[in-house]
This record gives sequence, C-alpha cells and structure tokens, in this order.
Amino acid sequence: MTIDMYQASIPVFIRFLGNLSDLLDKGEAHAEAQGIEPAVMLGYRLYPDMLPLTGQVQIACDTAKRCAARLTGTEAPSDADDEASFEALQARIQRTVDYLRDFKPDDIAGTDDKPVKLELPIATLDFTGMQYLLYFALPNFFFHVTTAHGILRHCGVAIGKLDYMGGT
Amino acid sequence: MTIDMYQASIPVFIRFLGNLSDLLDKGEAHAEAQGIEPAVMLGYRLYPDMLPLTGQVQIACDTAKRCAARLTGTEAPSDADDEASFEALQARIQRTVDYLRDFKPDDIAGTDDKPVKLELPIATLDFTGMQYLLYFALPNFFFHVTTAHGILRHCGVAIGKLDYMGGT
Repeated sequence: MTIDMYQASIPVFIRFLGNLSDLLDKGEAHAEAQGIEPAVMLGYRLYPDMLPLTGQVQIACDTAKRCAARLTGTEAPSDADDEASFEALQARIQRTVDYLRDFKPDDIAGTDDKPVKLELPIATLDFTGMQYLLYFALPNFFFHVTTAHGILRHCGVAIGKLDYMGGT
Repeated sequence: MTIDMYQASIPVFIRFLGNLSDLLDKGEAHAEAQGIEPAVMLGYRLYPDMLPLTGQVQIACDTAKRCAARLTGTEAPSDADDEASFEALQARIQRTVDYLRDFKPDDIAGTDDKPVKLELPIATLDFTGMQYLLYFALPNFFFHVTTAHGILRHCGVAIGKLDYMGGT
C-alpha cells in the first residue's frame, strides 16, 4: 500500500490551515485581553528583516493554494495581500480552504511524476510532483504555520504545540 | 503512481536534518563572531516556557528517529539529551542520520495502514501509519526545525528560508 499525492497534500493543508485559524483566534483574544493593538500583533516579527505575522499567514495560504494549482496544471486565484485585520486573515484562510476543497482526489492522485517548474527570482527549479510536494510545498507550508505560531508565542499568546498540531 | 511511506519519510528527514546541521553551523559561527557564549545561544528561547534551541534540535532528531522505529515496529536507540555544545548537537544529528540511513525502502514501504499507537502523557493516540506520518511525525519534525530556525534568526544569525529549505 502507498500514499497518493492527494492524501499527502490537500487534506493536510486543510487540517493545518484550520489549526492556523485557531491559533489566530487565540492571538486575537490575547490582544484584546491585554489591550494590544491588533495591528501591532499582526505586524510583529521575530527579527526586523523577517516577515510579520500577516505575511506568514499569507504565504502559508499561498503555498497550499499554489501546490494544488501546480500539481493540477491550473492557475490559482490571486490574492491582493492587503489583509489588515484578524478578520481579513481568517477570511483569507477560509477562502484558501474553500479553494482546496474543490479539488477531488482524482485531480491530484497520479501527479507524483508530473513535471513542476518553479520560476523563482533567484533560479528556476525543476521538480517532479512528488519532489515538489515533499521537499518544497509541505516544508514551506509548515515553515510558515510554525513561524506564525512562534510569533504568537513570542507575543505571549497562551498556545502550544498541541494547538499547532490540532489537538492530536 | 503514488508515493510510498519510505519516500515520504526517511529521505525527507535526512535532507532536513542536514539543513538543520547547516543552520547550527551558521549559528555557531555567528556566536563566535559576535562574542556570544555558545551556551547562551543554545539556551535561547522565543518565550520563557518554550524549549530552547537545544531542545528543538533534540526533538527534531527524536521525531525522525521514533517515526522510523514506530513504522517498523522496532525500538529506537535512546539518547541522554545532555548536549551542551554545538559540537554535541551536531553529533546528535549525525547519529540520527546514520540511524535513518540503516532503514531500507522495503522496511518502511507498505506501513501506511500499520497501526501506530502513541502513549502520550495526556492521551493515547491510535493512528494508521499514514495518518501518523502525515499528521503527526512530519508536522512535528518541521515544527522543531522551523522553531530552531526562528530562535537562530531571533539571535541575529544571518540565515533565511533558503537555508531551512536547503538551497532549493
């Protein structure tokens, strides 16, 4: 028995985007309870040249969205990246989850050897679908969800790894 | 075509443990250049009740090691968790990579429906091998590698996501 590309991508993204949404809910509640301006928390960074919380959420969403699009050879809808509130970030996450839910297992199963080309500013990367999912999309996605968690933790939000993992 | 459980686990862990090793090398060089005591960086945390850098590396290693052991129904070697230097953490990573390299594809392929039981302090979790890998082991592993990256970034080490991704 094996895993198919759908199982290793879409439901995993959906699950952890839900966890990210819960992390942000706790961040918003903490900001309100502590009298922290939401914009301060959304703009918080672990280091000045890192992306703020908002950017981490945006890229987590983009990574999931683009993975589904690239594996299926379709175009993902674009986002304006103009979220300026917890509510707007939650809407971004929900929109991404809704988009992912439209993919059926058969759309993505079998894409493991499909060529995936990434045109990055620094280089063009040529992957197979499987390499792209395992060595690029999933690690990148978890990087941004975890960094969002780290920023919220650094701001004193009472969350932990169980919140990141989704209560497993 | 599909992915097998080996492809989605052992080589991914080995690749990102190598990246983690490179991140630590840059952390050590930064500490030396800036006159930061290595013990200060190794003990640095994003928040007082989070694990320090050392703990992030230890758990990343443990997660990979235990995943291989649980999927194959074997016992992973224990580690004393007494690393007190960059050199000792690098040795821990190398020992983990060596251990992972001993698994052959056939040892792990086909474990997707194998029952995996985790006895945690707060609950007992029953997974299939695939659920365990996709929803527990990989997210947990990337969580700790990314949090190590975040701690090093917060300490001013000149690294970025490309270092985490391994130059892809």
